[in-house]
Order: sequence, then C-alpha cells, then structure tokens
Amino acid sequence: MTRALLTTLRTELGAEAVLTDADVTAAYTRDQMPLAPAGQPLAVVLPRDVAGVQATVRACAAAGVPIVPRGAGSGICGGANALEGCVVLVTTKLADIVEIDPENRLAVVQPGVVNLDLREAVAKHGLFYPPDPSSYDWCTLGGNLATNAGGLCCVKYGVTSDSVLGLEVVLADGSLLRTGRRTVKGVAGYDLTKLFVGSEGTLGVITEATLALRPLPQAPGTLAAAFSSTRDAGAAVSRIVREGLVPSLMEIMDATTIDAVEKHLNTELGAGSGSGALLLCQSDAGGELARRELAAIEQICRDTGAEMTHATDDVAEGNLLMQARRSVHYGIEALGASMTDDVCVPRTRIADLIEGCERISEDVGLRIAVCGHAGDGNMHPTVIYDADAEGEFERARRAFDAILELGLSLGGTVTGEHGVGKFKQDWLERELGPVGLHVHRQLKRALDPGNLFNPGSMFSLE
Amino acid sequence: MTRALLTTLRTELGAEAVLTDADVTAAYTRDQMPLAPAGQPLAVVLPRDVAGVQATVRACAAAGVPIVPRGAGSGICGGANALEGCVVLVTTKLADIVEIDPENRLAVVQPGVVNLDLREAVAKHGLFYPPDPSSYDWCTLGGNLATNAGGLCCVKYGVTSDSVLGLEVVLADGSLLRTGRRTVKGVAGYDLTKLFVGSEGTLGVITEATLALRPLPQAPGTLAAAFSSTRDAGAAVSRIVREGLVPSLMEIMDATTIDAVEKHLNTELGAGSGSGALLLCQSDAGGELARRELAAIEQICRDTGAEMTHATDDVAEGNLLMQARRSVHYGIEALGASMTDDVCVPRTRIADLIEGCERISEDVGLRIAVCGHAGDGNMHPTVIYDADAEGEFERARRAFDAILELGLSLGGTVTGEHGVGKFKQDWLERELGPVGLHVHRQLKRALDPGNLFNPGSMFSLE
Repeated sequence: MTRALLTTLRTELGAEAVLTDADVTAAYTRDQMPLAPAGQPLAVVLPRDVAGVQATVRACAAAGVPIVPRGAGSGICGGANALEGCVVLVTTKLADIVEIDPENRLAVVQPGVVNLDLREAVAKHGLFYPPDPSSYDWCTLGGNLATNAGGLCCVKYGVTSDSVLGLEVVLADGSLLRTGRRTVKGVAGYDLTKLFVGSEGTLGVITEATLALRPLPQAPGTLAAAFSSTRDAGAAVSRIVREGLVPSLMEIMDATTIDAVEKHLNTELGAGSGSGALLLCQSDAGGELARRELAAIEQICRDTGAEMTHATDDVAEGNLLMQARRSVHYGIEALGASMTDDVCVPRTRIADLIEGCERISEDVGLRIAVCGHAGDGNMHPTVIYDADAEGEFERARRAFDAILELGLSLGGTVTGEHGVGKFKQDWLERELGPVGLHVHRQLKRALDPGNLFNPGSMFSLE
Repeated sequence: MTRALLTTLRTELGAEAVLTDADVTAAYTRDQMPLAPAGQPLAVVLPRDVAGVQATVRACAAAGVPIVPRGAGSGICGGANALEGCVVLVTTKLADIVEIDPENRLAVVQPGVVNLDLREAVAKHGLFYPPDPSSYDWCTLGGNLATNAGGLCCVKYGVTSDSVLGLEVVLADGSLLRTGRRTVKGVAGYDLTKLFVGSEGTLGVITEATLALRPLPQAPGTLAAAFSSTRDAGAAVSRIVREGLVPSLMEIMDATTIDAVEKHLNTELGAGSGSGALLLCQSDAGGELARRELAAIEQICRDTGAEMTHATDDVAEGNLLMQARRSVHYGIEALGASMTDDVCVPRTRIADLIEGCERISEDVGLRIAVCGHAGDGNMHPTVIYDADAEGEFERARRAFDAILELGLSLGGTVTGEHGVGKFKQDWLERELGPVGLHVHRQLKRALDPGNLFNPGSMFSLE
C-alpha cells in the first residue's frame, strides 16, 4: 500500500519531488519546538504546483496516509512535526509572488514565498506587508497563514489574518477552494478565509493567498524607558493604551531579560543596574507626529515612575536600542536550556503576569525571563534550566505549565501567536471548554472527514 | 405539535414573551428589503435572557420548527424575514451593556443594544465603536454582528468583524458556545468568532459579544470635490489609495444622485450644474494632521481634474456638506420606487462600475443613481422605477441583476455589506462556485444538522 502510494507520488510529482531517504527527510521532521513529539515520515514531498498538491492529497486520501503540511519549519508549536508514517507536504517550492497590484494595494502569493522576500518586493512599490514574526527572514507566508503569525507589528497593524483578503486551498478531497475576494469589503457567505487562517494545517493546504498591503511607514522614532519595577512599567502600558496612543511597536523586558541581554551584548542598556523593566516603543507616524507620539508616551512613562527615558528619531540609534530586544533570544540561550511560553493577557494584567512569573520562578527555583509584546499583552516568559541537571527539566516544565495556568487565570489565552500544534492540545482543550472543543471537532469532521490533514495536531477527534 | 410548542415557549419564557396574534407578529415578519419573500410565523418570541434563548432553541429543535433570529429588523437582504410557520426569535430584549472596560478598550454587550446607544455610552469614556451602518440610530448590535455590517467608517476602521474579540452563541442543541477572548491577540483554535460574524443567523443565536473599542477620534475636517466625469473622480480615488492616504470617510455620488439630492434639499451642492461626480472626504486625524491629510487629497483631486474643491475644518460646515450624502436616500425616494444594489469592486474599478451603470441605465430605460463608499469600493447603485408603470418593475429587476453581473465581472462581490439573506442566494451560489458552496453546506450541516436556524437563507442545503 505504501509502496503503491510512493509510486503514485513519484509518477505525479516527479521522482525528485518525493524524498524517502531517512537522512534527507530528517530535515523535515521537526519544527523549532523541541518539546513536541515527531515521528518518522513515510515520505517528504515538495510539489512544484497546485496540481502537485492536489495529486498528493488525492493519493494520500486514497491510501489513508495522513498529510502534515509544512512551510519552512520555523514554527514553534510542533504543528509541522511529522507523524509516524505520514507524508510531509512541503510548500516551499510553490514560491512565486504571482502579482503585486499597487493601485489596489494587494499582492497575490504562493505559500512558499519567504516573508522577507515579499516585504522587499512590495517595498519597491512603496508598500508594506506588516506581519513580522521573528523568523521573518526565513519563514514562509504559508506557515504564517497556517499559524496566523504575529510579530512586533501587531500593536498597530494586527496579525496575519488582518492582512488576508482571500485564499486558495486544496481540500481533503483534492478539490480547490477559493475563499474571500480581491475587494477590501465583502459579506458574501461565511468568512472561510479567517477559518483557514490559523487552522495549523488541519483543514487543508493553502496554495495561494491574496494579501492586503499598506503604505510603507516612515522611518521610526524610538523611545526606551527603564522602570524600577514591573508594576510601574505595567502601569505605563495601561496608561498608553488608555490614552489611545498607538505606537508601531511596544516591547517590554523584565529584569532577568535585561540582565541576560546586557551580558550577551557586554554592555549596559542604560537602564541602570537593578532596573525592574525596560519598555521600548517606536512610532512610524513620521516627522513631527512621531515626535509628538513618543513625547506623549515618554511623559506617561515619567508620570508612572520611569527612572530613565531616552527618545531618538535617529534611525541608527533606534536600531541600537532595538538590538536589546532582538538579542533577547541569544542572551537567554547563553544562560542554558530554555522553554518559551506564549501567553496573551489583557493589557492591564501584564504586571500581574510578570509578578506571577517571579513567584513561579521562586517556587521552582529556576530563572524565568519575561519579555514580550506589551502593546497587545502577548508575553513570552522563558524558563531557563540546566538540561543536564537532575530534575531540572521536570521543574522547568512545571513552571512552563504554571505560566499557562496563570495566563488563563488573568483572562488570557494559552497561545497569543505561536499556536497549539502537537504541544498544547491539552491546554487548548482547557481554554476552549467542552462546547468549544465539540465545535472544533464538528468543523474538522465536516471539512476533513477522513482526518487526513495533521490528525491529532491542535486537538484530537476523540 | 405546534400547540405543544407554544405551550412550552409560554411556560419557559412567560406568556408575554410569546406573540402569536397575526396583527402583532406582522411587525416582525419583514426587514427593510421589500423584494425578499416573507412567510407567516407561528410565533414571535422575545426572550429576556440567555436561558430564554436556549429554551426557545431546544423547544423548536424538539418540535422541528425553524427559528429565524432577528434584531431590530433594519436589515436589507431579507435575512430576518419570517419563514412560513417558523418562530422568529427577537433579541431586542437582551439589551444590556454588560461592561465597559476603558483600560483594555473593550465592551461586553448583549445583542439587543442599539448601535447608537453603545456609541454614546463609550463616548463618555473617550472611546469609539466604529461600525456605523446608516441605520445606526435604531439597528441593534446583534444584527450588525449577524450581517457583519459596515458603514461610512470602513475605509479607515474596517467592518464589524474587525471590532469583535469574542462571542457567546446559543447553538442548535441549545448549548452555549464562547468564542474568542478578551485579549487583542490569540491563536488558540479556529477563529470561530469570525465564522459566526456574518453568518446571518444560520449557525446560531449570538447572545453576547466582546467588542474592541478605539480612542474617540478628533472632530473631522471635510473636503468636497466636484468632477466633470466619474472617470476623473475614479482616478482621484485610485491615486488617494495608491498614495496611502486613509481618510476617515470617502464617499462618491454620481450625477443622477447629485441631481436627486439637489432637488430634495432645494439647493445647489456647489458642484456646478452638469457635474459628473462629487467626492466627499473627511479626516478625523485632528488639527494640523487632518488639514495636511485633506490638503493632500485636495491636491490629488485637482491633479485629476476636479472642477471645484472646498475644504473646511469647521464641523458645522462639514456637517452641511455631509448632509448631501445623508440625504441621498430621501432624494432618491422622491424620484419613485427604487432597488438599491450593494456591490463591492476593487477600488480601481469604481469608475468602470459607474460607467457600466450608465450603460445599463440606457439599456433598460431607467435612471440609476450611484453613490457609495469609494474608500473601500463598496457602491450602492440604485435603480429608480415607477411601480405602477407596466413592465417597469421587471426592467428594474433586470438592471439590478445586470449591476450584480457587472460587479462580479470587475472582480467584485455581489454584496459588500448588506448580506445575502432571502434575496441573493442565487448570486451567492454564483460567486462562491460549486466548491465554495459545498464547503458552506458542510459547515452548516456540521453546526446545525437539523437545519434549525434560518433554513434556506443565504444558501439552501440542496
């Protein structure tokens, strides 16, 4: 049966598009979340066109072999991890920017286009594709769509689904669905586009997307503000939101994160030793308006007790300040093994979340570095542990779960942007509750009755 | 059987909440779209709480009697029109603003809250709920959610679904589903919120919504620009979009509309006689920024051939200019019977749409007045006819359909904001195509296996 499937796939896609050598397929079995399980795939296929995707889906459906759709593998929830004996359907060879329409400010792309490549292509037309996950220089738009990726832009420009006008999707029977439209408005039928965005490869394979573009923003001005306590920084965030200021970026780092970054960069962030939190804000409104926006934010930071504030409209200096945020990953990496959480809480509860993480840190006896997108409440507490030390992994895992628990108790969600995948199914079930889970299962059964696409990822049918 | 159902409903909801007198129920059998069919309901029920909605759903499901959910009845697609022998479930008694949370900029509302009442309540906190359908002073938020209502705000602030964070929905088995969350970001599971928004009462009854609010915008500045041809006005719109200007309102009126409004207001709009099109723009960015935004738009209008432009930051004068747009309905009403279309086209095709309407007008020998939301391409061509003249209704209907055909041929949709309801099912089928329709049917069957909610509205199961 599996041999027949491989023969069919080779015939339909060409032998070079069907990989079965375990040494080769190994590169396609995991994404970037080491804690999620992964199996050995029967094959990895890389179709070059939509017909190839359809042929793969039909052949796998006929053989009863599950399909795991995969982009670049930059995900961090195990969503693209292989299932034992599955076919991994990699969309990276469907990599055309089909069209850029500057007049209607939209682009039509295939799923294998790298996020950065689209950004650069549309920038030539003075246009901007906002979603900017941290892997933007290698992740693909197909993966961004499947996980509804966010990034630093979200506070002002929203998440991936806010930039999608329509999709082309290969369904479980191999048929080709077109959702949405090229117009900016439309209410003809159910919003299928938004149903497929963020469905993590469980409902179909996205083969094309029509994306809304924005005018290229101005070069940003940047503000850094250091606080003695996370409580004060949290109060600043609340006030900024409350007063209707919408910076184009608003990131927060706690003391542990500041410390890790300072060690990594071998510099002081100017926050002063023992600073409790650093807030980084940008405004891309341009010129005088950006200056005024940042000045208003700076005033709020001072009013809420900032020990230090520094604003600049010099782009190079702004980049230097932003380097602190961009170095968090490396700074923490240097401290040991780590598990990064992804909770999103109401923006008024950020200080509560950080303080809760401090308590959890004390409980388990491990450091937790908290940074995140303060502008939308999406925080990434990272538990640091020694993988070789007896029992530390288990304690880290306990802290990781306690943070999710805390996020839910603060009215938040167990995943703000990373997704559920093959890692947080239990937590999704808990967040959704029995009725929500039941509806998910009903929808999955309706669109994928054979449970062909990524079975057991996100949630199981039983 | 039906008597038993009525007894159950009276027991569960109280006798005063169950209306069966045909003279009384007549007020609940139709919305504002006279061309859509309507039947005689078995009963109209007005539950006062969620338990009452659940009891109604369970009782109707048990009796096999369909439910048509209804808000204020301001819709214009027949979506809320009664089916013969159905129960009309009216949500206007669920009318509490449950919570306003200024710090997190959100409100929790029941479906019977009138759009304007929410606007006024949040304005006291300096906040703004953008969606503003023209019936905003009497339509309810439940209906806005069910139809994914738009309005004049969409060019800058999007449609209803862009302001919804989460829902509470009574499903076909009477269970209570909670979708979404109170956070501004979140990817835990499928986007059920967006699936229910715009589903026109075919998947469940929305009993609560968590809505995102924005800071109250500044008092708007206003610009009027008159063009000798719709082609020039269309070119202006394209340039404005292309250059990344985002006014808070951008409306277009063609010559027939201008004429109708001038007659109604008994004044000249200052466009000069024989003007081909009038463009009205507002900026709510405030002060100097608004002046610059409108000045840039004014310059584009001049560059593309405007015969007259007039900008003002005087609010009263702006309201006077906007009165022209707000009077369109009355101006056209005075000309005879009318059918208002609702097509949305890519913004570069607005001039093509208006010129196409002129051709259709000549073909059928009836006037067609075109106005609409130029900023998002959502146009409302209105066919004017004499209801008493032999054959005019049929010709009007032919023109109406030809406009939908034209909209589709220009890459548009058959409904930008009014919905499908019991009027445009054939056109929806055509726009979706067989695969899209099949997916709609699969989803409807999955969530409403007994076809309880608004059966045959939007699309039929066969």
